[in-house]
Amino acid sequence: MKSAEIITIGDEILIGQVINTNAAWIGEQLSCIGVAVIQHTTIPDERRDIAKALKTATNNADLIIITGGLGPTKDDITKTALCEFFQKKLVLNDEVAKHVEKLFSRHGTQLLAVNKKQAEVPEGCRILTNNHGTAPGMLFEENNKVYISLPGVPYEMKGIMEEEALPLITEKFNLGAIVHRTILIQGIGESFLAEKIKDWADGLEKKSIGLAYLPSPGLVRLRLTAKGLDRPNLEKKVGIAIDALKPLLPKHIFGEGKTTMAEVLGKLLREKGLSLSVAESCTGGNIAQKLTSIPGSSDYFKGGVVSYSNEIKVGLLRVDAALIEKRGAVSEAVAIEMAKGARDHLKSDLAISTTGVAGPTGGTEEKPVGTVWIGLATTKGIWAKKFQLGENRERNIEVTALTALNLLRLELVNNNL
Amino acid sequence: MKSAEIITIGDEILIGQVINTNAAWIGEQLSCIGVAVIQHTTIPDERRDIAKALKTATNNADLIIITGGLGPTKDDITKTALCEFFQKKLVLNDEVAKHVEKLFSRHGTQLLAVNKKQAEVPEGCRILTNNHGTAPGMLFEENNKVYISLPGVPYEMKGIMEEEALPLITEKFNLGAIVHRTILIQGIGESFLAEKIKDWADGLEKKSIGLAYLPSPGLVRLRLTAKGLDRPNLEKKVGIAIDALKPLLPKHIFGEGKTTMAEVLGKLLREKGLSLSVAESCTGGNIAQKLTSIPGSSDYFKGGVVSYSNEIKVGLLRVDAALIEKRGAVSEAVAIEMAKGARDHLKSDLAISTTGVAGPTGGTEEKPVGTVWIGLATTKGIWAKKFQLGENRERNIEVTALTALNLLRLELVNNNL
Repeated sequence: MKSAEIITIGDEILIGQVINTNAAWIGEQLSCIGVAVIQHTTIPDERRDIAKALKTATNNADLIIITGGLGPTKDDITKTALCEFFQKKLVLNDEVAKHVEKLFSRHGTQLLAVNKKQAEVPEGCRILTNNHGTAPGMLFEENNKVYISLPGVPYEMKGIMEEEALPLITEKFNLGAIVHRTILIQGIGESFLAEKIKDWADGLEKKSIGLAYLPSPGLVRLRLTAKGLDRPNLEKKVGIAIDALKPLLPKHIFGEGKTTMAEVLGKLLREKGLSLSVAESCTGGNIAQKLTSIPGSSDYFKGGVVSYSNEIKVGLLRVDAALIEKRGAVSEAVAIEMAKGARDHLKSDLAISTTGVAGPTGGTEEKPVGTVWIGLATTKGIWAKKFQLGENRERNIEVTALTALNLLRLELVNNNL
Repeated sequence: MKSAEIITIGDEILIGQVINTNAAWIGEQLSCIGVAVIQHTTIPDERRDIAKALKTATNNADLIIITGGLGPTKDDITKTALCEFFQKKLVLNDEVAKHVEKLFSRHGTQLLAVNKKQAEVPEGCRILTNNHGTAPGMLFEENNKVYISLPGVPYEMKGIMEEEALPLITEKFNLGAIVHRTILIQGIGESFLAEKIKDWADGLEKKSIGLAYLPSPGLVRLRLTAKGLDRPNLEKKVGIAIDALKPLLPKHIFGEGKTTMAEVLGKLLREKGLSLSVAESCTGGNIAQKLTSIPGSSDYFKGGVVSYSNEIKVGLLRVDAALIEKRGAVSEAVAIEMAKGARDHLKSDLAISTTGVAGPTGGTEEKPVGTVWIGLATTKGIWAKKFQLGENRERNIEVTALTALNLLRLELVNNNL
């Protein structure tokens, strides 16, 4: 199995100002194509340290991926270090120069001398096009080792990896087949999930299928992995395992791979020709933001009201002020009225509402932090459901938003809306 | 200056299943006490790899901190590797044995053989008490180098570092001082910023102040660093440099350190006793979400309307339908009407509006993807400003949200609202 070391350049990471999410992401991608990640190394923005790390990694791994230190400002010395290591000169690359110029002219901004320097690369390297920024990726080969240098800005790095580097690595290392499928699960914690699917999970081992639990707030991703030479056979084997899993979690599995809950729901709404609006109190815009993060969502998402104050609940959603007074803003009755108000006044077919105590303050004995009501107004009725979440504000907001979207998804799938 | 390497043990980190927040946290703590963190290294749960990493780190740094691989199940590997490296035997430590027993009896749970093994440590090491779990921290000294081994569970690791390790490191290394300050800058790209502050940045070198640019969508963080013996003097030196920077970027500097734009703006609103509402089209709830992510934001944030459809712009914000027809939804006039509508109908003192083409679709020759209008309604008037952003939807939404919040912040600061 080919091995990889990931070198991250950046003082800001060493001193903990920035958390190294790049190395984690690259580690995940490499594992997925069957490369063994054997080391992450983070070093300072210093030529000497970069040179030393390159030398050590060369003795360690087959593939060396370097991120960071490729921006237009002068704390970037990676290219000089690469030139020294490979004993090459910096030369102007016409292809990159044109790309940088095009990016700047498109934004109508002026090209500066520092930007022009970005088109200089070590002689003989292969350029990996950066479709999301000016600093190019670079690939070097020497003594059967592959070196890839990438900018540190996450979305630029990810773009180059996905569009250019990963296919090249797979090709150059002649990697065997590896099949991954990731099942997305909402509304059940990792421990309960493990208990519920224990027999199924035990059975995977005999079939040489690897299983990993990847939890995040409100979600668990289950990744199945099979390795071998015969891809169609691996795909079939993993497919059978997934088919056997689905009936065990009818309410929780909402999708697969890189999709999101908002994307899955959006697709359903589009298919059924139904429109949606939201009335958000405790989620404060998080649901709207999730829905509108999907390109083309304006086709089915009408919009929403973030009714953080009771005044807005009354004024825009026409919730009865006396009802809020009597039952409290965090109550079944208010969640129902909010959903109804959104559906009626934002003129949509369906509506979601949320009202709760996200924390850390605002909790009472009767309604402690983490108390949340989610309301749904559909073509078949209006109802609300209570959830008792934890104490972490950020997590409560995220879990509420995902749970609300999943509740609506289940209505669409199961209730024939 | 004393240097440190942080070694993290864990396959789950290498393959990106877990992000290495431990290394970031330790890096931050060490920087703060004046130790130069020169490397983070992550390696597999393998004795051979641990031994190799210890050897390399010994040649590299004065202080080696190892985390992970000390749980009740993985115990053996790290401790055995440490025993081999220091050529010591594993011996039962009575102090740790009593601590483990006490913890178990407190929880009323039964002590297992694996837990008893946790009281075994390499002979001659100094125990660092773990008040939050069973696996002890361990400190070794050899040839003027200090080695500290810590469990990987974040709250256990942090407890041992704060209560035991950091004071010991400061004492043993007789540490000098290091001062970091990070300035937060919005609304100017890295290249333009570098050009604008070139003379100032050149002057820092003479004063032995280090400078780093840390960009993210819509933001650049500028970090200044000074090292020496006399902390008050370093603080003064960096403070003078920052005072000289501020007049160069009057519109762009919004804060310092770990704060966020929403937090800075929230604080201003609270101080001035002003309330805010938002009318979001292209940002789709992102601004509301940023504002409501701050605990206690309901004191000044009334709420918002996500007016994704024109119907909602007309229905809830009372934008004139004929105006939308004539000028288009993405226009100065509509941005102004949206801000006015939010202020009037959500009954707030101030309002922000956004309308634009986030992309990837919806662009026209006249209004290409990335065209954005931001509107502001304040106690002193209403206006809107146009921005031409890029092609990345996610980035356009993020940059628009931050720009809108900064525009309002500038009004509050400069226009005496």
